[in-house]
Amino acid sequence: MRILVVNPNSTTSMTVRIAAAARSVAAPGTEILAVNPPSGPASIEGYYDEALAVPGLLAEIERHEGTIAGTVIACFDDVGLDAARSLATAPVIGICEAAMQTASLLGGRFSVVTTLARSVPALERLAQRYGMAGRSTIRAAGVPVLALEDPASGAVDRVRAEIRRAMEQDGAESIVLGCAGMADLARSLGEEMGLPVVDGVTAAVKLAEGLAALGLRTSKAGGYAAPLPKAR
Amino acid sequence: MRILVVNPNSTTSMTVRIAAAARSVAAPGTEILAVNPPSGPASIEGYYDEALAVPGLLAEIERHEGTIAGTVIACFDDVGLDAARSLATAPVIGICEAAMQTASLLGGRFSVVTTLARSVPALERLAQRYGMAGRSTIRAAGVPVLALEDPASGAVDRVRAEIRRAMEQDGAESIVLGCAGMADLARSLGEEMGLPVVDGVTAAVKLAEGLAALGLRTSKAGGYAAPLPKAR
Amino acid sequence: MRILVVNPNSTTSMTVRIAAAARSVAAPGTEILAVNPPSGPASIEGYYDEALAVPGLLAEIERHEGTIAGTVIACFDDVGLDAARSLATAPVIGICEAAMQTASLLGGRFSVVTTLARSVPALERLAQRYGMAGRSTIRAAGVPVLALEDPASGAVDRVRAEIRRAMEQDGAESIVLGCAGMADLARSLGEEMGLPVVDGVTAAVKLAEGLAALGLRTSKAGGYAAPLPKAR
Amino acid sequence: MRILVVNPNSTTSMTVRIAAAARSVAAPGTEILAVNPPSGPASIEGYYDEALAVPGLLAEIERHEGTIAGTVIACFDDVGLDAARSLATAPVIGICEAAMQTASLLGGRFSVVTTLARSVPALERLAQRYGMAGRSTIRAAGVPVLALEDPASGAVDRVRAEIRRAMEQDGAESIVLGCAGMADLARSLGEEMGLPVVDGVTAAVKLAEGLAALGLRTSKAGGYAAPLPKAR
Amino acid sequence: MRILVVNPNSTTSMTVRIAAAARSVAAPGTEILAVNPPSGPASIEGYYDEALAVPGLLAEIERHEGTIAGTVIACFDDVGLDAARSLATAPVIGICEAAMQTASLLGGRFSVVTTLARSVPALERLAQRYGMAGRSTIRAAGVPVLALEDPASGAVDRVRAEIRRAMEQDGAESIVLGCAGMADLARSLGEEMGLPVVDGVTAAVKLAEGLAALGLRTSKAGGYAAPLPKAR
Amino acid sequence: MRILVVNPNSTTSMTVRIAAAARSVAAPGTEILAVNPPSGPASIEGYYDEALAVPGLLAEIERHEGTIAGTVIACFDDVGLDAARSLATAPVIGICEAAMQTASLLGGRFSVVTTLARSVPALERLAQRYGMAGRSTIRAAGVPVLALEDPASGAVDRVRAEIRRAMEQDGAESIVLGCAGMADLARSLGEEMGLPVVDGVTAAVKLAEGLAALGLRTSKAGGYAAPLPKAR
Repeated sequence: MRILVVNPNSTTSMTVRIAAAARSVAAPGTEILAVNPPSGPASIEGYYDEALAVPGLLAEIERHEGTIAGTVIACFDDVGLDAARSLATAPVIGICEAAMQTASLLGGRFSVVTTLARSVPALERLAQRYGMAGRSTIRAAGVPVLALEDPASGAVDRVRAEIRRAMEQDGAESIVLGCAGMADLARSLGEEMGLPVVDGVTAAVKLAEGLAALGLRTSKAGGYAAPLPKAR
Repeated sequence: MRILVVNPNSTTSMTVRIAAAARSVAAPGTEILAVNPPSGPASIEGYYDEALAVPGLLAEIERHEGTIAGTVIACFDDVGLDAARSLATAPVIGICEAAMQTASLLGGRFSVVTTLARSVPALERLAQRYGMAGRSTIRAAGVPVLALEDPASGAVDRVRAEIRRAMEQDGAESIVLGCAGMADLARSLGEEMGLPVVDGVTAAVKLAEGLAALGLRTSKAGGYAAPLPKAR
Repeated sequence: MRILVVNPNSTTSMTVRIAAAARSVAAPGTEILAVNPPSGPASIEGYYDEALAVPGLLAEIERHEGTIAGTVIACFDDVGLDAARSLATAPVIGICEAAMQTASLLGGRFSVVTTLARSVPALERLAQRYGMAGRSTIRAAGVPVLALEDPASGAVDRVRAEIRRAMEQDGAESIVLGCAGMADLARSLGEEMGLPVVDGVTAAVKLAEGLAALGLRTSKAGGYAAPLPKAR
Repeated sequence: MRILVVNPNSTTSMTVRIAAAARSVAAPGTEILAVNPPSGPASIEGYYDEALAVPGLLAEIERHEGTIAGTVIACFDDVGLDAARSLATAPVIGICEAAMQTASLLGGRFSVVTTLARSVPALERLAQRYGMAGRSTIRAAGVPVLALEDPASGAVDRVRAEIRRAMEQDGAESIVLGCAGMADLARSLGEEMGLPVVDGVTAAVKLAEGLAALGLRTSKAGGYAAPLPKAR
Repeated sequence: MRILVVNPNSTTSMTVRIAAAARSVAAPGTEILAVNPPSGPASIEGYYDEALAVPGLLAEIERHEGTIAGTVIACFDDVGLDAARSLATAPVIGICEAAMQTASLLGGRFSVVTTLARSVPALERLAQRYGMAGRSTIRAAGVPVLALEDPASGAVDRVRAEIRRAMEQDGAESIVLGCAGMADLARSLGEEMGLPVVDGVTAAVKLAEGLAALGLRTSKAGGYAAPLPKAR
Repeated sequence: MRILVVNPNSTTSMTVRIAAAARSVAAPGTEILAVNPPSGPASIEGYYDEALAVPGLLAEIERHEGTIAGTVIACFDDVGLDAARSLATAPVIGICEAAMQTASLLGGRFSVVTTLARSVPALERLAQRYGMAGRSTIRAAGVPVLALEDPASGAVDRVRAEIRRAMEQDGAESIVLGCAGMADLARSLGEEMGLPVVDGVTAAVKLAEGLAALGLRTSKAGGYAAPLPKAR
């Protein structure tokens, strides 16, 4: 079984870390194919970056169509998720959706700790869409995405501090890490903090494997119908 | 005052009709600049078309930045609305948002009559986002977008029939036409049906003029902060 | 085009200020006819004042029926809005509805700064009705309505301080001024605070002009059907 | 204990029937004082009638202030409920609120059968306000209010037929009668239909008695603070 | 009229206090029969205790079937409420539902003060179910249930302090006491605090009396249909 | 890895079929331990059966505590889910929650086809709890649970017919089978109907495996805190 993990930004070092996180939880028979578009925004920090990342993301999905059992979109804004589901025949999982679903299986309220404040409104809207608005709080640690690539940036300390605030102020029973670039932090932060810390990349890999094992694919009976043939 | 009206699909004949509708309601001092991207999907029928239309839409907005008082995105899916608001300094109005707001000023429940069934889920999600889910029903007339360009297609009759069903079955107090390609039908259908029929293009032009007169611009204090400088 | 602006309280000095604000944004061809009932509560501060103000408000609307293109109800509680829509043939706009709609076009979350704490529950209910509860916070500056008529009262400073709290604590991307008596403050406070500050009177005038230009009137197909003839 | 039951319309024959229904369930020690304003709309059928009925209603409440243990507003639109709560020191119960609460204790989904279609939007909004929108359906029997005063009008048959439709189509587990003029029908229709049929007048009397026994009064700590002294 | 009040935990001293509170508000003709299961959890503090208390609760209801006019479940988690409604022919009232309904008649926002933090999620879910989530806040005083049986425990002081926080921070217009063991505190705390303090046991007794007087019983037309005969 | 699958009713033949379905999707290294309580209701059809099944369910979970990687509760009412999460240290998955989450990854709207009409209200409440109420419809096929054990009962035909109605009337993009006794029908019905048909037992097994692989356990920081020591 091959799972395509697309990092929709063009920062290859982040793709490498995402791939490692994905492989750390993949089942023995699962091959993780981690890619990123050759060009496009270096990081996704707000709606404009999101929009520009989508065509490259869709091209990656199209390129691997027919050879994969499922796709994970490894950006916490779930960029291009609907378009990808229309395009692909295999299931597509967004890491925000995956992480929120997973957190909801482990406790009641959860808090998301994302990077920059400008991303909070987009994630609040996703929480609304996924039926999680009533049980979640979205917080920003004030960390640019690419600071997560730099161990000297102090980014992890700021994430840790924000998790503490979530525990004290939000009634959070679990924490969701709100950026694919935090994928490798979940396990250690969870042990340190003493409550479940969920990362979306790893959660999505398990959901994709699960759907494949169940023989389930995206429904084409509604909004995810295959694109109509036309001039584009 | 110059209002930019962007038809995000690449069908110029539709842009011409949209422009005419926009001009029919514009105030004396308002110049309507109607454009479409030179390439991209010929019509927007589902999430995949939406995603591919956005970069061309944003390029048009960027090209006219600084010379306009406001922008109307003339696709009922409100494609690229958030990215456009981040990018532009002048206000940006989506025609779905404009039409739903306008309908909500005229009565209680309203029904949207859009083109194809595959677009219904996207519009239901917009109704949710705009706080209108509890008072609206989304319906499809089974009309491809470009059939609206062809008087011989019978498209208008199918729209008319769907409006009748909305009046009989939904308790609709007003009707929203769910495609920019229907912009020129609103007034005549309203007179024929005896209840308000709202088109988003014309509604959005008036909202854009209004915001300009009020001296109001998109807030940059949250999710619509200007894009950060970075490799794209 | 003539727009009727009804201040439903009986304080003529407030009507004068409301009229000036309305005229400051009206289109060249728009005549603003600003009135208030000859008697009734001097200010509207709570549900009881609301109820007593409505008959006078309706009498003003009835008196001008047939001569106007639209009516603005210039009290932020949107008092009598439904009854006025039933009674009038031209559109009727409430300033709370107008301001919330306008704010929602400019950003995500917004905060309303109103006068007295006793008005907060009524405005929270309006936010719910208009589909804005999930994105808005209602705050009171602790300012009696008529203090806004008195430059020496310090009322504006208290409004300014409450706006600052909204920016710091609510994640507000824009501010809505929650009283018709604040109509003349929006532009200067917006410039001072660096984010959009929306006033309902001016916003409603532009919406009323827009509906008139679109040829749209209140639907009589549901709850706003004309009153039945009967002894009253 | 004296309970004031105000029929806010001016049709005395309806007040007589409402009083009889109220007395039929009142506890031994409860005196029912049923009144209506001397003038005002003969029936309340829509928002305009509602608005005009409120001042007379408030005058009745004011006239009996200090002599009663609670007030029931006997119009299913719960007209003037908030103003009455501000004005009165004893509790005030609306019959829509009372009936919906009572129905929610007896089953899951319920349907309201009211008089005219024009009243449906107002009742849907009340269901929203009372937290009952997700479990209720509002239906109109097409019966003018005063037809309920006339045994030869066939009104009861139309109510009966609408209850049957609610049972077949809505999944209704109980029925709420949506007009004070139906107060005397609840018990017989319940027996005939084999499911709970709730009337608001009688339900509200029991709630008012209950609050009095509990020693509870309207909170003056928020929106129901006593009206401020001012020119009215 | 006989009302069965079941304390679903096995602490008889609490049953005695609950019975006294119930009798203090019961109508002259009402007999309060207060019972608890002979075994089961000594107090209900979380979901596990809830689950284990239900069979004993149902056995008490079954034992008195046919001899009572209504049942009150005197645990603020409303444990076993749905099963009890299926089983019994007379109405069944949960004290959380009763208290929240009662508070909603007295003001807008209310806060619940319960015992331990672990019970907050369950009560938030009940608020959601009863349509009260948008107007309520759930708080814990950090008091074990059985500390309420011990005057020397300081429990009442902690409840008092939490009520003060609710008044200062939540905009609470009334307070709901979130444990049957607080039933005897409502009246004195209400007088002390100057706003309505609602206890569910007493509120539920009045609702049960009311339903009996109205001749209303649980609907068997849906989810509360009588259990099917089968091996159990 | 050992996954405990508890059928909370006492019908062993159903446990056998549930076990087979679970094993058909389990990963190579996963052992499925399928059990049912030795006594308790033979099937779960309504709230009363639910309540009586829980103690036996909890006893099974307690008996295997410490030896398993996760538990699946194989009743579509998700009976005892909260209590089980409090009790167990390993994750616990309800099959309704699992199926609804899975369906939400495959399309927009989905319909649940359950057994008897009396179970619909309970499932509607679960849909509300899981954030799925806005995108789901609950339907009953009119099939007693144990009819699913009998190939001659015609039960499968009735399920098939109800799926067809869901496709025609609800806009369902996928189907959820609303009873553990339907676990073996999902794959064949999906192929026959041409849209995803999701069964909760198999979906829950994959979620339980996934959580185990991610090293995630139920949060004990809130409502699922371990039961307090006390007399029970």
